[in-house]
Amino acid sequence: MIPADLIAFAHHLADISEPIAQKYFRVNNGEVAKEDDSPVTKADREIEKVMRQAIEQKFPNHGIIGEEFGNKNIDAEYVWVLDPIDGTSSFIIGRAIFGTLIALIHNKKPILGIMNQPIAKERWIGINNQGSFFISSAGTTKITTRNCQEISDAVMCSASSFYFQNGEEKVLQDLSSLTKYQKIGGVIYGGDCYSYASLASGFVDIVIDTGLKIYDYAALIPIIENAGGVVSDWQGNDLELKSDVQFIACANKELHQKVLKEIVG
Amino acid sequence: MIPADLIAFAHHLADISEPIAQKYFRVNNGEVAKEDDSPVTKADREIEKVMRQAIEQKFPNHGIIGEEFGNKNIDAEYVWVLDPIDGTSSFIIGRAIFGTLIALIHNKKPILGIMNQPIAKERWIGINNQGSFFISSAGTTKITTRNCQEISDAVMCSASSFYFQNGEEKVLQDLSSLTKYQKIGGVIYGGDCYSYASLASGFVDIVIDTGLKIYDYAALIPIIENAGGVVSDWQGNDLELKSDVQFIACANKELHQKVLKEIVG
Repeated sequence: MIPADLIAFAHHLADISEPIAQKYFRVNNGEVAKEDDSPVTKADREIEKVMRQAIEQKFPNHGIIGEEFGNKNIDAEYVWVLDPIDGTSSFIIGRAIFGTLIALIHNKKPILGIMNQPIAKERWIGINNQGSFFISSAGTTKITTRNCQEISDAVMCSASSFYFQNGEEKVLQDLSSLTKYQKIGGVIYGGDCYSYASLASGFVDIVIDTGLKIYDYAALIPIIENAGGVVSDWQGNDLELKSDVQFIACANKELHQKVLKEIVG
Repeated sequence: MIPADLIAFAHHLADISEPIAQKYFRVNNGEVAKEDDSPVTKADREIEKVMRQAIEQKFPNHGIIGEEFGNKNIDAEYVWVLDPIDGTSSFIIGRAIFGTLIALIHNKKPILGIMNQPIAKERWIGINNQGSFFISSAGTTKITTRNCQEISDAVMCSASSFYFQNGEEKVLQDLSSLTKYQKIGGVIYGGDCYSYASLASGFVDIVIDTGLKIYDYAALIPIIENAGGVVSDWQGNDLELKSDVQFIACANKELHQKVLKEIVG
């Protein structure tokens, strides 16, 4: 069982990130920001900084892997993996479908994940042996993935076709041509972490991406798996917190098997 | 000047659409809906129905063009153009970046447009000779587009690469390779009408799409133009409420000229 104080602390990290994301959201009206002083860059750095400080103060022996400020003590029993703003492109244009990702790794396995959307005030949390939950102003709901077992009934998402390179495009195109909404392209873009959260909530059946870093997906694993979904790389292997991963998530085991068969052939 | 009762009535149409969109949003958890009984199809039809009934009751001489139930009296002095759910793919997967589009055409020219997001409770309205406004729980703000005049500083959006066919892909790719975020693909997908609203609010500088129908874009014209933006087809021609339009919107005249030069060559 995951100690209750660690679960509470994970929520605390999400809580302290919120006002920073809110402060920098939709503020660049009128001006054209340079890369290094853009609102999203500032939000990214400030959020990771306050989360790291909170971890170092409360759990000085825990490790940290962060998108912005690198790794610290990564062989510790507990390691926090932080992505302050996942879905940068949505943040930039004022769309409230980006997320702050917080994972807790125990002995190299993710055991808790949070995806927090600070503008819409939506939070997904997955906790091993407890389940996955959606928390909003309407309350807390236990969530489960959908029972869709055929690719031809499946709704598929991906961050962007742009990331699929060197033959990976064909995998995306072939899968797209088999899904439910093939007439409108078969794949819905632009969601980043939000698409995986939507899969855990039962609105999406397949999410496929490539080139994912550990901080892009570590928090998503407990959210998806504890809702009934399955994740792996494109060959069906377990994800061992590697980098540049070809990532696939499906609503259930049967669909996952069928999707892998299409990819691997 | 647009009569005040017509502006109030446009708001009324948006108001009565909201509870229907809310009712069908995120309800298909667990089940896999068929095309014709899907929540989005039901929402689409019910919303257009209540809006048409309201128009027919209040302004029986006005014309109506709707996505779902076709055209009526389109040579009238005033014609309403309705798209109950624009951004179907976002609605399907539970993303609050779809919109209800309402345009008022007077003597063949759009004079008022509303883009209403019923979940986040965000409303954009553009009124000729008055300006464009963003209405949310925080109040009403007059909005203006950004002053970005270089493609290399510009943030670009498009609904999906899928719609670009028969050589149109090259236009999208070439433009993408010139924009500010070219390293992450240069174009942000998945927004549909929300991307145009974001342009009017000053967070996006270029939106390019193809195959747009009159109900996809009629409401967007007053919102964009009265915020300082420019719309045309890809050749720079005025849009005369045609169908299957290659649509381009830019934050200002200078940027529009440069983008057209890239497209036309």
